[in-house]
Amino acid sequence: MSDNKTIGVILSGAGYLDGAEIHESVLCLLALSQAGATVKMYAPTSELDEIDHKTGAPTGQKRNVLVEAARIARGQVEPTESVKGTDVDAWVIPGGFGAAKNLCDFAEKGAQATPDKDVSRIVRDALAAHIPIGACCIAPALLAVITKSSGPRLKLTIGNDEDTKKALAQLGAEHVDAPVTDVVVDADHKVVTAPAYMYGGASVAEVFAGIEKMVQQVMAWA
Amino acid sequence: MSDNKTIGVILSGAGYLDGAEIHESVLCLLALSQAGATVKMYAPTSELDEIDHKTGAPTGQKRNVLVEAARIARGQVEPTESVKGTDVDAWVIPGGFGAAKNLCDFAEKGAQATPDKDVSRIVRDALAAHIPIGACCIAPALLAVITKSSGPRLKLTIGNDEDTKKALAQLGAEHVDAPVTDVVVDADHKVVTAPAYMYGGASVAEVFAGIEKMVQQVMAWA
Repeated sequence: MSDNKTIGVILSGAGYLDGAEIHESVLCLLALSQAGATVKMYAPTSELDEIDHKTGAPTGQKRNVLVEAARIARGQVEPTESVKGTDVDAWVIPGGFGAAKNLCDFAEKGAQATPDKDVSRIVRDALAAHIPIGACCIAPALLAVITKSSGPRLKLTIGNDEDTKKALAQLGAEHVDAPVTDVVVDADHKVVTAPAYMYGGASVAEVFAGIEKMVQQVMAWA
Repeated sequence: MSDNKTIGVILSGAGYLDGAEIHESVLCLLALSQAGATVKMYAPTSELDEIDHKTGAPTGQKRNVLVEAARIARGQVEPTESVKGTDVDAWVIPGGFGAAKNLCDFAEKGAQATPDKDVSRIVRDALAAHIPIGACCIAPALLAVITKSSGPRLKLTIGNDEDTKKALAQLGAEHVDAPVTDVVVDADHKVVTAPAYMYGGASVAEVFAGIEKMVQQVMAWA
């Protein structure tokens, strides 16, 4: 495991229904901290559609993605437009609906989704430079959306959800089932993915077990 | 360490400047999950004063404490008014300014603070029944506010911040300095406290080390 490495984390808000999944984000930060990484956090400056997390209903209000991400980042978050894919030693992208609503529109459009342009640029440049990427929960679908037209064909997991697997196949990705405590490693492209809360009934400890493996693989490559 | 125990967690929003500290909350949930606890989350239904977490400035807007806490709780949070202090085997209270703004008004009034009535009832009934309580960051000040008039005199830590220590002394609590990775145990009253992000420059791994000790002590008593 390497230390003295700088890892970029892309956040998409704060709250699993309209932003970054909070548990996954913090568990990524914990595993990165335990591995001795220096973390820099980034988020788009776009607006998200606020969901009431008690009722699950849309409120009709907007929130700024970066300003909400700053709740997870304790203020230390910069715009994705300000960073290059090659500025860090690796990237980690937590899940939550934010990854599928604010970093791309996969939640609404499935296999017809298009990505946020800055996040797409970061991921494409990182892949081209063989900079490692870890992604969990629904964030692997974002990687599939970004790579669908120009490749490479990534091997990844979102757990075992059949509808999502179908969409990933349509996007050209190779899906491999995995339990919540495990990861799928695409060594050719230095991409490692973990299902996390794609298993909605998983315990926090189970989600952390998978995320810890994901981060350890990212750090081993970085 | 006991398992098959139900632990109540009191949240005060989602975001360290106007609610529950997100890292501390998730790290408490992780340590509880790793210890085999069943967790039930609670929050007041009052309103909080929203702070922009990127700029640190008040926005002039309000948010509902419970609805924001639901972002951390993935929807599974109930009103503090619906639970008794003796309904669970132990209580855990993460920090963040929410503990000092939304569970009491310590952030504004210091030693003259008064607590939220339901949180006060829960804590007083738990202490009277020798139900263990773990609290971190600024949340120990909430315990001091609640016990100032009717006791007991608690031994606790908020790290080593001099101004906060003075206020705790005025509230009648006994403060013991502790580093971020450690806890202070009041075995007589089954109260364990950890400094967490009272050390603002602490790493996530250091904060987890202290919170893990806090949760393990809570579970050993529960």
